[in-house]
Amino acid sequence: MTTPSQPAPDLATRAVAFFRELQDQIATGLEVLDGGKFRQDVWDRPGGGGGRTRVLADSLLFEKAGVNFSDVFGQVQPQLAQGLPGDGSTFHATGVSLVLHPRSPRVPTVHANVRFIQRGNAAWFGGGSDLTPYYVVPEDATEFHRALKGICDRHHPSLFPRFKRWCDRYFFIPHRNEPRGVGGIFFDYLGAGAEAAAGEPSPPQGTEWEQDLERVFAFVRELGRGMMDAYAAIVSRRRGQPWGDRERDWQLVRRGRYAEFNLIYDRGTLFGLRTDGRAESILMSLPPEVRWRYMVAAVPGSPEASSLEEICAQRDWASG
Amino acid sequence: MTTPSQPAPDLATRAVAFFRELQDQIATGLEVLDGGKFRQDVWDRPGGGGGRTRVLADSLLFEKAGVNFSDVFGQVQPQLAQGLPGDGSTFHATGVSLVLHPRSPRVPTVHANVRFIQRGNAAWFGGGSDLTPYYVVPEDATEFHRALKGICDRHHPSLFPRFKRWCDRYFFIPHRNEPRGVGGIFFDYLGAGAEAAAGEPSPPQGTEWEQDLERVFAFVRELGRGMMDAYAAIVSRRRGQPWGDRERDWQLVRRGRYAEFNLIYDRGTLFGLRTDGRAESILMSLPPEVRWRYMVAAVPGSPEASSLEEICAQRDWASG
Repeated sequence: MTTPSQPAPDLATRAVAFFRELQDQIATGLEVLDGGKFRQDVWDRPGGGGGRTRVLADSLLFEKAGVNFSDVFGQVQPQLAQGLPGDGSTFHATGVSLVLHPRSPRVPTVHANVRFIQRGNAAWFGGGSDLTPYYVVPEDATEFHRALKGICDRHHPSLFPRFKRWCDRYFFIPHRNEPRGVGGIFFDYLGAGAEAAAGEPSPPQGTEWEQDLERVFAFVRELGRGMMDAYAAIVSRRRGQPWGDRERDWQLVRRGRYAEFNLIYDRGTLFGLRTDGRAESILMSLPPEVRWRYMVAAVPGSPEASSLEEICAQRDWASG
Repeated sequence: MTTPSQPAPDLATRAVAFFRELQDQIATGLEVLDGGKFRQDVWDRPGGGGGRTRVLADSLLFEKAGVNFSDVFGQVQPQLAQGLPGDGSTFHATGVSLVLHPRSPRVPTVHANVRFIQRGNAAWFGGGSDLTPYYVVPEDATEFHRALKGICDRHHPSLFPRFKRWCDRYFFIPHRNEPRGVGGIFFDYLGAGAEAAAGEPSPPQGTEWEQDLERVFAFVRELGRGMMDAYAAIVSRRRGQPWGDRERDWQLVRRGRYAEFNLIYDRGTLFGLRTDGRAESILMSLPPEVRWRYMVAAVPGSPEASSLEEICAQRDWASG
């Protein structure tokens, strides 16, 4: 058992600079993929800091794509302080968060996030990426998982299996008894010490690696830069495939599950709304159009039913 | 200050019988209004009790209408027990709950609920009804509020002003800084003693009336039987009015707020989902179709902008 390293005095500054640049890199890449242009809104948070929200909507590929950068700081509210590692009454949170909702039901929705949080003497990184296909294509799920595994494995062999499991447990909708999609990776509190994540479904095991904030930051940088590559390849393969009313309807119904997860369970969403965050930036993650019909059930043996089965199986996709 | 009366031994039985009959009465009335037929699903709750869910969808008037009856009982989970009046480890909850989403943006969405809850030695009634127009027509809002005021006033003059205020505070979306609609009435813990509702925005004032469960039940019966009358009149006036893509788009965007409220804040929804309630019955309240666009703003001076202003003003509609 090791104790967490003290963050270098300039770590927060370097993290902010990296995330700001990462937003540019990702948004530029997505503009090339889509052909459209992001609008940008620069905003200030009344309590300290602010952000840049970029949204691309009603475009050819993306019905709605949001890429947020934020860098906020200030006083920790007492009700939130309890749940955070460290002590002290001030916090600093910075990161990039994106959710892409393509128009075609053949192209999966994707979410990705990398973040750095500091509270008093404690500092940690969190993040992850998960894929939500409407029609599961095993080849795509495997490529997505293997790309994340490749990045993780270059930093520590323990990361991928743990972060994959953490993702399966985090992106789960208890009242539907369904995962949100085919998963990916999720991690939090890296660098803050094992106790910080004691309540987590897949807590750190106190390895030396994960207590070294500089090594964790190197991993987060590589993840941030590489996490959209597999998605771009999947998009290229699927965007031209035909679909009709039936596939669109299934997509809109499944998007309802996405909205349920984000509004009822997602920590980032609830944290943001409860800290007087900018609602339009936080809720850019919600699907552009959603249907809630009563008792929708996929026809047994249909592509919709088999997609749902693949999702519920929470497979070890990286093993193929 | 008076102490709550003990519930008569047969009160729960009478409440269940009344709510069951009320569901029939309301569903029959709505079928006449709509011309369609409700489907019914009878379900059992694994922990005890069950319900009858009735949904009418894709019809002429209603895009989705749900009228639930439920009668559930069993062990109180420790995490929920803290928030409930009374002691003891068993509970009984029964009631009727409805949400009607019309197809036309000219016809408001309405919610109504009456319920009876018993926990150990404590018993209470709760309920209310609120109107969510997409285009506010002052005449309709006034009729809706006056009808509720008429029912309240026949039981105690203190009820309507208090329940109207309670509704304004309950059906409010903090992260949007907007009420959900033009309000109505909301009440809880009637009959359980003033302490039971101490944390509420508009707690009971300990009048004799509200500690008398039989008088409260008489009020709840009259409310249940009469609460759809004003809505039916509003529907008749508005259903034939023309609308197009612009009005439909505004309706779908505003329905997003409805989904946000229900999934993030609504006690009934969260209580139901956290007690392993039947998700499809609980979430029948969600709008059939919703849009979340980034930074939608009504054009200043437009009917949409003035509707939103009317909603945000939280007027004393009953005074006209």
